[in-house]
Amino acid sequence: MINKELEVFNEIAKALLTDEVENPISEVIPPNELHGKLSIELNEDAIPDPVFEKALKEIILKTPKTSSKLFFNQLFGGRQPKAVLGELLSVLLNNSMYTYKVGGPQVGVEKEIIKKSGELIEYGDNFGGTFAAGGSMSNFMAILMARDRADKGAIDKGVTKPLTAYTSAASHYSIPKNAAFAGIGRDQVRYIPTDKHGRMIPAELGKAIKEDIEAGNLPFFINATAGTTVLGAFDQIEAIADISEAHNIWLHVDGAYCGSVIFSEKYRHLIAGVNRANSFNYNAHKMLGVPLSCSVLLVKDKGDLYKSFSKEAAYLYQTDHEFDEFNLGKTSLQCGRRNDALKLWTLWKSVGRKGLGEVVNQQFHLADVTRDYLRANADKYSLYSFDDSISVCFNYKGVDPKELCTRLYEDNELLVGFGSFNGETFVRFVTINANNTDKEILNFFKVLEKTAEKMVKEQLVEV
Amino acid sequence: MINKELEVFNEIAKALLTDEVENPISEVIPPNELHGKLSIELNEDAIPDPVFEKALKEIILKTPKTSSKLFFNQLFGGRQPKAVLGELLSVLLNNSMYTYKVGGPQVGVEKEIIKKSGELIEYGDNFGGTFAAGGSMSNFMAILMARDRADKGAIDKGVTKPLTAYTSAASHYSIPKNAAFAGIGRDQVRYIPTDKHGRMIPAELGKAIKEDIEAGNLPFFINATAGTTVLGAFDQIEAIADISEAHNIWLHVDGAYCGSVIFSEKYRHLIAGVNRANSFNYNAHKMLGVPLSCSVLLVKDKGDLYKSFSKEAAYLYQTDHEFDEFNLGKTSLQCGRRNDALKLWTLWKSVGRKGLGEVVNQQFHLADVTRDYLRANADKYSLYSFDDSISVCFNYKGVDPKELCTRLYEDNELLVGFGSFNGETFVRFVTINANNTDKEILNFFKVLEKTAEKMVKEQLVEV
Repeated sequence: MINKELEVFNEIAKALLTDEVENPISEVIPPNELHGKLSIELNEDAIPDPVFEKALKEIILKTPKTSSKLFFNQLFGGRQPKAVLGELLSVLLNNSMYTYKVGGPQVGVEKEIIKKSGELIEYGDNFGGTFAAGGSMSNFMAILMARDRADKGAIDKGVTKPLTAYTSAASHYSIPKNAAFAGIGRDQVRYIPTDKHGRMIPAELGKAIKEDIEAGNLPFFINATAGTTVLGAFDQIEAIADISEAHNIWLHVDGAYCGSVIFSEKYRHLIAGVNRANSFNYNAHKMLGVPLSCSVLLVKDKGDLYKSFSKEAAYLYQTDHEFDEFNLGKTSLQCGRRNDALKLWTLWKSVGRKGLGEVVNQQFHLADVTRDYLRANADKYSLYSFDDSISVCFNYKGVDPKELCTRLYEDNELLVGFGSFNGETFVRFVTINANNTDKEILNFFKVLEKTAEKMVKEQLVEV
Repeated sequence: MINKELEVFNEIAKALLTDEVENPISEVIPPNELHGKLSIELNEDAIPDPVFEKALKEIILKTPKTSSKLFFNQLFGGRQPKAVLGELLSVLLNNSMYTYKVGGPQVGVEKEIIKKSGELIEYGDNFGGTFAAGGSMSNFMAILMARDRADKGAIDKGVTKPLTAYTSAASHYSIPKNAAFAGIGRDQVRYIPTDKHGRMIPAELGKAIKEDIEAGNLPFFINATAGTTVLGAFDQIEAIADISEAHNIWLHVDGAYCGSVIFSEKYRHLIAGVNRANSFNYNAHKMLGVPLSCSVLLVKDKGDLYKSFSKEAAYLYQTDHEFDEFNLGKTSLQCGRRNDALKLWTLWKSVGRKGLGEVVNQQFHLADVTRDYLRANADKYSLYSFDDSISVCFNYKGVDPKELCTRLYEDNELLVGFGSFNGETFVRFVTINANNTDKEILNFFKVLEKTAEKMVKEQLVEV
């Protein structure tokens, strides 16, 4: 019954893959023109398959192509074929990951990823983990576990203690957002200043904690970042862990962006000390090129997962009391949960841990190539990046970065974004698509320079 | 580069679809035997493709088949081919739904579903909506919006007021779980008694609210359920809305299981009054047979969505200030979010609203067939179900329902679960796979009776 749809899938997939090469940037359609240009409208009646398929194909081909060689706009991009294979199969399987009865071997797949990931970061004998719907949700689970450990009554009675959280000024916006969700409040988050590389300054962290303790607050959560959203900086975990341990504060390492360095022998040192953190997450849909979403959360003491997320539900958990740890719903944020594990498993199984490391290494290599190019063309560019980051920030001299990124987008040339740090704004170029080679990096600058030079000329005319 | 993997996908998909028919129940592997029987282990080194593909195929075929005609274990089952088509394509596209720049027409697809869904429930002129990672997360978003409306300082200062929430004793376990997450506390949830059909008793709700007000508490959230997890009961929303309006309390309708009745002219009356609720969600991955996850949350005043979920992030929201409502991240629980909309859109576009209604109607028809069978065989069965529910609960006389379900599972006969209500435990048979016909229902009983009769005989021998 579904064979026909699989044929249609193959046909549209083929068209998309061809179009990605021939037209790597889909023409931008302004939001208010969408319904005029595409048959998006939903109606009362059924439509014939050929009409449906035509409408669908047009929408697919007009969608931004995140796997093309001119997409550098997000902290993801490109696709690993073996991961896509796993994800396509998980769609057909359609298991929910709450019980072993319904997940079966897929539960084993998820647990194997958790186990091997925890071993990679030398997490000891008692760790656990789960998959969340994205990095923000992994961070949310971490702050909840920290809260429930520091304020024992919170689960039953609500938050009663004056909890304070710590994160760097360059960290992800989900930290204050999650503090609001958790009933703690955004004002209870302290933003610790960063050094010139965008890393949290440990001495400032220590100072802020002491001030809060003196003021009668209860510091309960420190978030360190492995790959900040703009500069791609790595907080120095060892120094931060010294402070968290001295004060008995939960330490979470948000590795959504760059936590996947754990797979690389060459770059693993960037998160040295992660074994001392209470929790750690990495998004395989970022550095590893796995389809969205694939966020892995590791927790050093699995008891914390059970404390904050287990809730009995007799209608759901019916078997395997002997093997209750295989009923994954008891350590999940939610109830029904799609299978986000198989796609990472297929990639890892096929290329091995070493292959995942090579995916990571290639991104750092491309970032080096980028920095070399910018340094070699210092007459045209100013560079804000530093080594050991895959976010290469720069400006083309005399051109406003916001206007440049917008122009590149609106002219259908390429997709890249901008960022700010310490009052400076710049283009943020991310070398996260490991399918790229040096050639694509140089081509990026070729395309960018064509537009930048055009803009410089226009400015001269205006003056 | 990915063409080879698409071939492998097609080959394994074909094997799976054949196996679903020939072996609708995968042989149960005990959790502790998984690694012995399947090559689940992840290693350091790459492996050759043929070895990888063999391991993968074995795992796929040993995974519980949720689309087979003998799977009745969850509140989902079966697959709608057009929805699967959309989901497979969204995997290849791999957009994140936070900005228009990266989502493009897929943002339009999501907004069209929200718009047409809101119109179906006559939600007025100012509604909004979003997609969440599952029904529990939709419920979580609802409780957060209610909290932030009742306790205005909560977002910044944390929860300070003695908030109390109300839900029926038969409602989903995510309500207290979410109350804990939100910093309110599980003890602040009141479980309202239900009538013999499992519906919340409105008079009891009114009584509980009055008692809390007198005790100095602040009632802020009422959860009504459209399809309770065990009996599939529909709370009477009109009567509950009278109470919520009288006290100015947020009313949420949890339609995760059966909210999709909005698509059926015949069964829409079951949630009459939903237009008066502040928020409402339905899981298209349940009644509509869309792949996991597809949870749609509608909010009557979209301002509530922005108040609780918007957070500026200059590095992310860079374009379309004129069309900022197309930057969906500002009304999302999380940041990066996979495209859960396209799969529902492809189904709806193809079959029309009326076709979705027929999917829903078929499930009620199958439930009627089931109840008829049980009534016609009252010598063997006791029936706990009532009309207008797709959860048909019953017992085979003389056989413990827990033991029966476990035996059916362990003997690889079929997958079905049990449930409890008012101290009675019974088999909970769910007619949610709309691909089934009367024949599959009768076959279910044929298989079940074979095992039940065997168990009766064994008991006689034991005695």
